Amino acid sequence: MSDAKLGRRELVTLIGAAAAGAGLVGRARASAPDAKPAAGGKTPWVYQPLEPDAVAERAFASYAKGHCMYGCFESIVGTLADRAGEPYRSFPFDMFVYGAGGVAGWGTLCGALNGAAAAFQLLSAKPQPLVDALFTWYEREPLPNYRPRGAKFPDVKIAAGSPLCHASVSEWCKAAHKKTYTPERKERCGVLTASVAREAVVLLNAQAAGRTIPAAFEKHTEECMSCHEQGGAQENSRGKMGCSSCHFSLGTKHTPL
Amino acid sequence: MSDAKLGRRELVTLIGAAAAGAGLVGRARASAPDAKPAAGGKTPWVYQPLEPDAVAERAFASYAKGHCMYGCFESIVGTLADRAGEPYRSFPFDMFVYGAGGVAGWGTLCGALNGAAAAFQLLSAKPQPLVDALFTWYEREPLPNYRPRGAKFPDVKIAAGSPLCHASVSEWCKAAHKKTYTPERKERCGVLTASVAREAVVLLNAQAAGRTIPAAFEKHTEECMSCHEQGGAQENSRGKMGCSSCHFSLGTKHTPL
Repeated sequence: MSDAKLGRRELVTLIGAAAAGAGLVGRARASAPDAKPAAGGKTPWVYQPLEPDAVAERAFASYAKGHCMYGCFESIVGTLADRAGEPYRSFPFDMFVYGAGGVAGWGTLCGALNGAAAAFQLLSAKPQPLVDALFTWYEREPLPNYRPRGAKFPDVKIAAGSPLCHASVSEWCKAAHKKTYTPERKERCGVLTASVAREAVVLLNAQAAGRTIPAAFEKHTEECMSCHEQGGAQENSRGKMGCSSCHFSLGTKHTPL
Repeated sequence: MSDAKLGRRELVTLIGAAAAGAGLVGRARASAPDAKPAAGGKTPWVYQPLEPDAVAERAFASYAKGHCMYGCFESIVGTLADRAGEPYRSFPFDMFVYGAGGVAGWGTLCGALNGAAAAFQLLSAKPQPLVDALFTWYEREPLPNYRPRGAKFPDVKIAAGSPLCHASVSEWCKAAHKKTYTPERKERCGVLTASVAREAVVLLNAQAAGRTIPAAFEKHTEECMSCHEQGGAQENSRGKMGCSSCHFSLGTKHTPL
């Protein structure tokens, strides 16, 4: 049969079925003003345990394309996209270029941590313990602790003492005797992105396996928080960052750190 | 005519055209393993000028649902979603809850700024001047500068001197004589989110209208950057944050700030 004779109703039904089968009707409905959120609208999305070293390698490669925040986030959620398709695949990954250099070079939050925190919230029903564990690890661990296959320069390990890009880069420049905008420092931040993405996956896997995620705050920071954070006598501040990375001197009101 | 007589080729063409017209073909192709990025994969997405005060009101309401980063981002991109539908509508907005309190209470980057920077990268082909302008404005402007209709407590304006949540909250607590976890401080961060979202839209609108976006760094910070940032004699650091909000004392190597 080379011709088809169809009633108008049958034709409409056929086009409708073809569209619905590929999700078109759902999307069209989602565009209506009073619609419920579409598939991508509710988090967390399903997490499937990933291989930490493979994600670290991908993070190093993705850093070269879109810097630290993009590199970390894309290595985790992009791997899930390759495995599971939508809604992961349609996520606008390029958006996370913004976190580079602590957001457009401002030196605020390390972009790798910013990207990991975004991935935690997207993929976990309980992201805060993951953030606490990753950020305290980043402050205190001599990093990088993973060497991607494509790395050229020798590792110079430092414990940043802070989740901030400014402190992390400054400490590294001092230890490595290299300037900020050298190929060595640029590669270092890619290698660091690989280490952070790897640790983020280790934590996501542990939580997915039902294990408790511990976070060990620095002793000095806990002392400061006990007075200045929630429930403390002062309660006049907010934060969990290592205090001594900014409060170099506490003046006469405190004993020296 | 109640019947249609169509050849097989015409029928396939008709169904294909109906599907392509609604973006179905693009999405189906994007799900294939070797596919190019889907519609949501490439940025920037189209920006349409928004009404700053309306976005500010929405930011205050969204802050109550998902805190500062969510509130700022959702007020901008959610307004575009209401207007234009996909791909904005399927974005997983809930993800940006993570930025609350400078990321899960860590006091790093102010969540409203983090959300605005994400929106800038998603909606602008040239986001860096927008970030520079918004962050310098946040550091130096006595904020909040917009009062949402639902605000209950009197405004206490401060210039944070820093884009960091920790500094912003601490300065406010000192000026307002209120503790961190009081209803007044919580509302203050919502009112601040409204001010930031409003200014972000003012900047996006200006850029969309072809105007140049100026950023005026603090004089002391520019002096520090001239030596410690790119091209400086030291070039041993990275950042554009107001230096004096952390470097309270510069020791004997520098003249006092």
